Amino acid sequence: MSERAGNLNLGALAFDAYGTLFDVHSVVAACEAAFPSRGAALSRLWRDKQLEYSWLLSLMDRYEDFWAVTEKALRYACQHLGLACDAATHTRLLESYYHLAAYPEVPAALARLAVNRRLVIISNGTPQMLAAVTQATGLTAVFDELISVEAVGVYKPSPRVYALLPQRLGMPTEAIGFVSSNAFDITGAKAFGLRTYWVNRQDATPDGLGYPPDIVVRTLTELADRLDAEEA
Amino acid sequence: MSERAGNLNLGALAFDAYGTLFDVHSVVAACEAAFPSRGAALSRLWRDKQLEYSWLLSLMDRYEDFWAVTEKALRYACQHLGLACDAATHTRLLESYYHLAAYPEVPAALARLAVNRRLVIISNGTPQMLAAVTQATGLTAVFDELISVEAVGVYKPSPRVYALLPQRLGMPTEAIGFVSSNAFDITGAKAFGLRTYWVNRQDATPDGLGYPPDIVVRTLTELADRLDAEEA
Repeated sequence: MSERAGNLNLGALAFDAYGTLFDVHSVVAACEAAFPSRGAALSRLWRDKQLEYSWLLSLMDRYEDFWAVTEKALRYACQHLGLACDAATHTRLLESYYHLAAYPEVPAALARLAVNRRLVIISNGTPQMLAAVTQATGLTAVFDELISVEAVGVYKPSPRVYALLPQRLGMPTEAIGFVSSNAFDITGAKAFGLRTYWVNRQDATPDGLGYPPDIVVRTLTELADRLDAEEA
Repeated sequence: MSERAGNLNLGALAFDAYGTLFDVHSVVAACEAAFPSRGAALSRLWRDKQLEYSWLLSLMDRYEDFWAVTEKALRYACQHLGLACDAATHTRLLESYYHLAAYPEVPAALARLAVNRRLVIISNGTPQMLAAVTQATGLTAVFDELISVEAVGVYKPSPRVYALLPQRLGMPTEAIGFVSSNAFDITGAKAFGLRTYWVNRQDATPDGLGYPPDIVVRTLTELADRLDAEEA
């Protein structure tokens, strides 16, 4: 009953972008085309290093934007795997970030979720990266705002990032739901005080830092079903 | 010539502990004994998660000490690998951190390096963990001080950690050399302004964030040789 009452007051949903709405491993195709049979390994290491660099630069107080981070992570991954990446290939792989695929259920599920509440994106990506990928996937209109960490110059899971949500939405923190498939992002948002929905698409191991999600779903369709049921 | 002049003024060397002086993967034996054929995988994931948790908690402004971080990382690693770790095994694995092995060349190399300068440890470890491992390896006497990040409540590579060195040593930053085998730690120390010596024991890929080490060696013996030659 108390959980239901809480949800009735949910005024907005904020979505992580990469890995939640957009499939970062859809760059695997571009990687595979450039380096046959190494696409999966490159794509995975590139992503892991991208996050690691975002954490390290934040902790060092040496913020660089996510395009630069993504570029440096790609260089590292190619060097580590012994892949000779010429300038044209480097650019082509990087630019695949501008036209990532949305997960299949995302457009229809967002349309349902938008009926009763405002939707925004809050992401590590630069404003340009976020504008490009939402446009490429036809999702621009469903979002009220695309919020980039660039406004605070630090990456997730800093509380300064999540604090942008009540500020920009003009709502109390407890009225905002946060949706991410990245376990560390859910942990950071929960520690900040947001209501959290973990989209565990690939049966990942839960984060063990002690800030578990309020609700776990497998897809955004399941999230829409849950919220419909609770608010019915 | 300018590099040589710089070294002549080196008044102290500060060492990272885990991975640099003490072999974190010497816990692999304890892991292997507990989980035959899975020791290497468990040891590696445990270490990776330990660092990741240290970065995330720092960024979240939710510092917990390194013992707690190490414990949570072990739980995660066991869960992820599907290993049922009972309480006694859990305790035994954790306590292997109190008696890690030093790398073979470390005692003799430290004795040489201590002739001309003060030596300290600066580490993520708790004061208790650092006291235990230096005692177990017979290295207590060679160090002037064991400096734990606990004093500032944040983990490497925060500049607040490296700032402890000039404060505690009472020396200018440029008179202090920093020694680590962890690439991210070298990056953080260099960004702070320390002279950095990367001990690349396992031919690791250099960090790509743009703060390369001043000198790269494979062992502490090679570091002692280099410094002897430069200061001769």
